[in-house]
Amino acid sequence: MEYAELREEVWRANVGLAKAGLVTLTWGNASGCDHERGFVAIKPSGVPYDALRPEDILVLELETARAIDGNLQPSTDAPTHLCLYRAWPSVGGIVHTHSPKATAFAQAGRWIPCLGTTHADAFHGEIPVTRPLTREEIDEEYERNTGRVIVEALNACGLQPLEMPAVLVRNHGPFTWGRNPAEALENAIVLEAVAAMALDTLALNPEVEPISGGLLNLHFERKHGEDAYYGQR
Amino acid sequence: MEYAELREEVWRANVGLAKAGLVTLTWGNASGCDHERGFVAIKPSGVPYDALRPEDILVLELETARAIDGNLQPSTDAPTHLCLYRAWPSVGGIVHTHSPKATAFAQAGRWIPCLGTTHADAFHGEIPVTRPLTREEIDEEYERNTGRVIVEALNACGLQPLEMPAVLVRNHGPFTWGRNPAEALENAIVLEAVAAMALDTLALNPEVEPISGGLLNLHFERKHGEDAYYGQR
Amino acid sequence: MEYAELREEVWRANVGLAKAGLVTLTWGNASGCDHERGFVAIKPSGVPYDALRPEDILVLELETARAIDGNLQPSTDAPTHLCLYRAWPSVGGIVHTHSPKATAFAQAGRWIPCLGTTHADAFHGEIPVTRPLTREEIDEEYERNTGRVIVEALNACGLQPLEMPAVLVRNHGPFTWGRNPAEALENAIVLEAVAAMALDTLALNPEVEPISGGLLNLHFERKHGEDAYYGQR
Amino acid sequence: MEYAELREEVWRANVGLAKAGLVTLTWGNASGCDHERGFVAIKPSGVPYDALRPEDILVLELETARAIDGNLQPSTDAPTHLCLYRAWPSVGGIVHTHSPKATAFAQAGRWIPCLGTTHADAFHGEIPVTRPLTREEIDEEYERNTGRVIVEALNACGLQPLEMPAVLVRNHGPFTWGRNPAEALENAIVLEAVAAMALDTLALNPEVEPISGGLLNLHFERKHGEDAYYGQR
Repeated sequence: MEYAELREEVWRANVGLAKAGLVTLTWGNASGCDHERGFVAIKPSGVPYDALRPEDILVLELETARAIDGNLQPSTDAPTHLCLYRAWPSVGGIVHTHSPKATAFAQAGRWIPCLGTTHADAFHGEIPVTRPLTREEIDEEYERNTGRVIVEALNACGLQPLEMPAVLVRNHGPFTWGRNPAEALENAIVLEAVAAMALDTLALNPEVEPISGGLLNLHFERKHGEDAYYGQR
Repeated sequence: MEYAELREEVWRANVGLAKAGLVTLTWGNASGCDHERGFVAIKPSGVPYDALRPEDILVLELETARAIDGNLQPSTDAPTHLCLYRAWPSVGGIVHTHSPKATAFAQAGRWIPCLGTTHADAFHGEIPVTRPLTREEIDEEYERNTGRVIVEALNACGLQPLEMPAVLVRNHGPFTWGRNPAEALENAIVLEAVAAMALDTLALNPEVEPISGGLLNLHFERKHGEDAYYGQR
Repeated sequence: MEYAELREEVWRANVGLAKAGLVTLTWGNASGCDHERGFVAIKPSGVPYDALRPEDILVLELETARAIDGNLQPSTDAPTHLCLYRAWPSVGGIVHTHSPKATAFAQAGRWIPCLGTTHADAFHGEIPVTRPLTREEIDEEYERNTGRVIVEALNACGLQPLEMPAVLVRNHGPFTWGRNPAEALENAIVLEAVAAMALDTLALNPEVEPISGGLLNLHFERKHGEDAYYGQR
Repeated sequence: MEYAELREEVWRANVGLAKAGLVTLTWGNASGCDHERGFVAIKPSGVPYDALRPEDILVLELETARAIDGNLQPSTDAPTHLCLYRAWPSVGGIVHTHSPKATAFAQAGRWIPCLGTTHADAFHGEIPVTRPLTREEIDEEYERNTGRVIVEALNACGLQPLEMPAVLVRNHGPFTWGRNPAEALENAIVLEAVAAMALDTLALNPEVEPISGGLLNLHFERKHGEDAYYGQR
């Protein structure tokens, strides 16, 4: 049971999705990855959060997607999660939701501009939307190609995954990540709050400008930089 | 008591309406139909959800609307439900609400465009709004005529009831359905979430285009097609 | 203690305001009137709903506003309530809130158009906004003059108080009423829901037309007319 | 333990922030100041509200910012709180949040106009937004300079701190205050409600005018003037 701890963390993040009010029905899943041992733990498909037990969490091999433990079918989004973990060794947790305000930006095809310090505390600039998938990418390996366009969108930003721990999949919804499942969940919560504020800000001032680079850097570094001074040591 | 099970399912769906936050006061009702035996079970009119007991659910004859069991008055919308069950043998559950975001589209007379996969997972395209009732249709058999324009709106789409399990009644509110009352309730929940997201998406991008046919088909079939692979077997 | 029952009803309506999510802090009050005996029962000023006990409800003489029972100060809006009861013998309950969506219409100076059956079930047409008070009306007997412009707005509609049980006080917020405090509370709940839907409907379709007179009459009469057939007998 | 009572008040205001639904994660803090003794009590940085105990509240010297009691790191916003207490001897409690609707105005750079009596009951006119910080003010003593531009914005209004107990920090979020932590919390609640209503009012009527000076004065004085008559004596 060398992956019992990871399973527990992943279970807690999935339950946390529902507790944070981010999911309707079963529209959301969290996973975690142990890069050293090459394991990914992920939610089973279509199981309600209040019925989910730690032992229901599937364990898959990172490279092959082969099920190592668990009797249920993994989330249909599992190939997307695996694709991201393979691309990003620094990422240990991923969350996918259809949280409504972030999904509205994904559906509108609009990147979320950085309009305030709430955003800058978690995301180092504008949050990208993926390009549309081609017909071929939809028909063949749809879920894996979803992961590929997320990686592509992040590369286009010139940022590292932990500097921009969210991408909106066009016409679909957000993926967020972090060093572990709990961080990925926290970023999903921040993203939805930031998207809600951005929607209202754009209604009040359609011509609003993003915050200055100086303020953006200060807030991001205050929480995530080498000399971070937010929170307790 | 051959309809005890149906009554229980209908009771559970009505209670579920309130639990899902879809209803204010008593603005919503769920019903179920046993096509083989020719019975419909439906909520009584104006009874609060927290006071509702399974035995309060009325049982009516599908063809005649005659009460078979129960002492209360059925929902005033019963003739609409009966009209739909008679037209659609594949439908075993119907839900009507005034859920606020879907009702806003019904009041605005705007069909809900398919802007993302959340929508495509449940509804195979744009969700229709009925035409206005004529003065004659309002004055005579209003509730039954409401059912007739719903059937008309669905026919105009060229889709089967289980491919498009929702229609918005103009200036009124949504009706949803499914193979049983629980599915009708689930579609009412999805509809409200989808309407809320569409409202925000249209505010962010008034010129937004619906998703491609390829993405629409993939998502609808992933959940409802012959080779569906969402959830557990 | 001939007014114990009225006090209890008024207490229940005040507690119901908080339970229905219509009030922030102490921004709302409910009252009841026994026209035969000439008593009005009303919430004390500034007391939180969860600390309110039935015996805290003040009892005032309808004609003189003299306190008959209770040690607390009545709601500062008491003169408005009294003014309405004196004008309208058919009204036995009044509720005032700052419920946010109805207040937005009051602040915008826009009447709430009748855009659907949810509205028509409770309000027989467009919900009026009062004219602004003059400087003199603000400086002298402000609260009583607030009552006077409500009566004026209703008269301008040509409707009876129970046909249009709500008026929005400009730059302030809604007053609703009914045959008793419970009905006034119910109308406050309906009003807020209707205002929220109207806001979204106007965003989706700024040129939307009100519903037809035929549909308006049918729905209002279905619930409130001589041949009403909604609910249980 | 001469500051035990202040600590308790500050703890209660911090817990109240979460209870009032004003905060996501740990985005908000409350403090209190004993001007006579020269102490400030403030929330520790990054501690969740449900884990916070009264003894976790830090006590700092007003003039020097030196920690007098408590083992945790104070809120990163402590220098802003201290700056305001030093400038305003009448203020005994300060609250900072990222409450979403008020933050939308801060991000849009729009002052909140006084559109109704809900606003006038707490704030004596339009609620100001600070000017942007210069690059130098961001790079050096950022948090203290945030306090300085708040003081500057209030001075520009020509009002006293207790007449205008809120300022929006541009691209950041609201600060509110009062005679004690409980009042500062109450003003944070009112501010968020007022911002939400203003957003909807501006959507309904983009050309809406602020309320008259007469109505503004009457409502503010009714609650806060020498002859205030709201609430119980």
